[in-house]
Amino acid sequence: MNTQQTYHVAVVGATGAVGEKMLETLSKRSFPIGKLTLLSSKRSAGKTLVYNNETYEVQEATPESFAGVDIALFSAGGSVSKKLAPEAVKHGAIVIDNTSAFRMDTEVPLVVPEVNPEDLTAHKGIIANPNCSTIQMVAALKPIKERYGLSRVIVSTYQAVSGAGTEAIEEMKQQSRDLLDGKAAEPKILPVGGDKKHYQIAFNAIPQIDVFQDNGYTFEEMKMINETKKILHDEDLSVSATCVRLPVASGHAESVYIETEATDVTAEEIKALLQTAEGVTLQDDPSTQTYPMPALAEGKDDVFVGRVRKDPDVANGIHLWVVSDNLLKGAALNSVQIAERMIEMKLLNS
Amino acid sequence: MNTQQTYHVAVVGATGAVGEKMLETLSKRSFPIGKLTLLSSKRSAGKTLVYNNETYEVQEATPESFAGVDIALFSAGGSVSKKLAPEAVKHGAIVIDNTSAFRMDTEVPLVVPEVNPEDLTAHKGIIANPNCSTIQMVAALKPIKERYGLSRVIVSTYQAVSGAGTEAIEEMKQQSRDLLDGKAAEPKILPVGGDKKHYQIAFNAIPQIDVFQDNGYTFEEMKMINETKKILHDEDLSVSATCVRLPVASGHAESVYIETEATDVTAEEIKALLQTAEGVTLQDDPSTQTYPMPALAEGKDDVFVGRVRKDPDVANGIHLWVVSDNLLKGAALNSVQIAERMIEMKLLNS
Repeated sequence: MNTQQTYHVAVVGATGAVGEKMLETLSKRSFPIGKLTLLSSKRSAGKTLVYNNETYEVQEATPESFAGVDIALFSAGGSVSKKLAPEAVKHGAIVIDNTSAFRMDTEVPLVVPEVNPEDLTAHKGIIANPNCSTIQMVAALKPIKERYGLSRVIVSTYQAVSGAGTEAIEEMKQQSRDLLDGKAAEPKILPVGGDKKHYQIAFNAIPQIDVFQDNGYTFEEMKMINETKKILHDEDLSVSATCVRLPVASGHAESVYIETEATDVTAEEIKALLQTAEGVTLQDDPSTQTYPMPALAEGKDDVFVGRVRKDPDVANGIHLWVVSDNLLKGAALNSVQIAERMIEMKLLNS
Repeated sequence: MNTQQTYHVAVVGATGAVGEKMLETLSKRSFPIGKLTLLSSKRSAGKTLVYNNETYEVQEATPESFAGVDIALFSAGGSVSKKLAPEAVKHGAIVIDNTSAFRMDTEVPLVVPEVNPEDLTAHKGIIANPNCSTIQMVAALKPIKERYGLSRVIVSTYQAVSGAGTEAIEEMKQQSRDLLDGKAAEPKILPVGGDKKHYQIAFNAIPQIDVFQDNGYTFEEMKMINETKKILHDEDLSVSATCVRLPVASGHAESVYIETEATDVTAEEIKALLQTAEGVTLQDDPSTQTYPMPALAEGKDDVFVGRVRKDPDVANGIHLWVVSDNLLKGAALNSVQIAERMIEMKLLNS
């Protein structure tokens, strides 16, 4: 007799880059789905998608779409979440939102299950999935903060184009082909679809992800700064960030510089700690040129850490190189893991 | 009547990526060449190159090649410099060496003409051209150090493949074509030609440039650390670095985090200072998405700086994004500028 509880799951933004990975992840992890509802914008409604050998027609997301839904995984942009997530909650669904719409809302838990699962208990219907570049960084930093204290983070990112959607991947490929053929690149989307100017991403690096804020930082940089403090429950932690887009399809890399409170930590101690950290895989052996890279991380679940070493001049300064698949742990996987953790913690109504 | 002094110039490594740029730069700047000798390894000897519409046959570099040479520009690898630079000096030539062979030799000036031209006066025949990634960084840091003091530098680089030679550019292009065509990439050179393992550079980022040292840093990282202190004459300056290779042909970018001694500097003051700095072009206006990028810097002489902003949490912390053509200011141009400066300073025998 199978007594496993199953859930009615809705995926909002099912036809997007993250939506596709949500479905793959739910299937791969055998998430207990009783009923599956695939939702999208009006434009993509009517498309069909296959899940576990069954074909589903994607429906336009409306407030009524959430009747009977237990878990709604949102990844269709901030404006859709702002409009429809409260409607889903009214219908009794738990919303796990992958956009920035509610992340800094003090009423909304912002959760990486390996880092701050306890925050889930305070939810009021919506749980926010952090920004991709934040998730992988805090996964590596949490065990270090717990053991040695953490006073400072300075991060420079090396981010993949898939964070800007499937069209951005196509744009990178088309520009690469054109430039290799001696033609001009035609920038149309990156760095930011809705911004005024577009720049070549193929064979280039663009120091802008998301739009600029009044303080000269991009919104992506401010997400890393603010979300890191919220997830680690430490408003006194100094965090600063520079976010850069690269011609890489999937897999964000980060050069993370930290200062621990302890001044006598060795790189070997940090490595030993990360070797047993949940969700983290240490790839660090200079003698065999072993270190994480986006091309190796694509399609994998873990957060990979390498190049661990001490600042030669600053006793509590440590470098880490952190890589993870931005569509998986950075988005779809973390969202599904939040749902799984809520089931474990008995935070979902049965 | 033309009374301009001319010089017998030898280019060692004339057929390489930097050698080619040396010749372009000498021609573009109308360097006063009386006689030009092009030298290479035995393997490339016999090739012909055109300089100012005249064809030259490249000769194998031997100790005797330097008879009568006034200025020898070396860029053929450290082992060639170690063997032949002293021979050139014996023949009375001034050697400007673009390899790492003599950079940390206390008897050898390590010079960026805009930064420490005074060091040239102490030369004993050999002047070292710094590492490409160091040159562009110190060009941006020198005016800041002079005005506001500088206590700390933490840099993460985004480096182009041309720093590893013309074959590395071809490797990147071939891998890009293969991957776009659905074939596997075949890594043969990068990250380091002579190292044990090779990794895909197309659509990837490799956190290794040059070989690993015993302390876990790569040689490229240690070059940035040690050369920056030497050029800025400041052994107390804290410097740390993470160097990463990108699928970009030419143009190194750097996310540079600094701490000034002054704690009340504004980003606007730093920008105003850099706007008038020699060899530096400020490209910094978030409202028009203006910032430096490798694709914009390729073929240009200057060091471009943008994304200037203060750390939101640390009063004396400032971010810079520094981009320059690694084959020009990072190599060929700086070498030629050293020669020009030595002529101006009357440090070359007439």
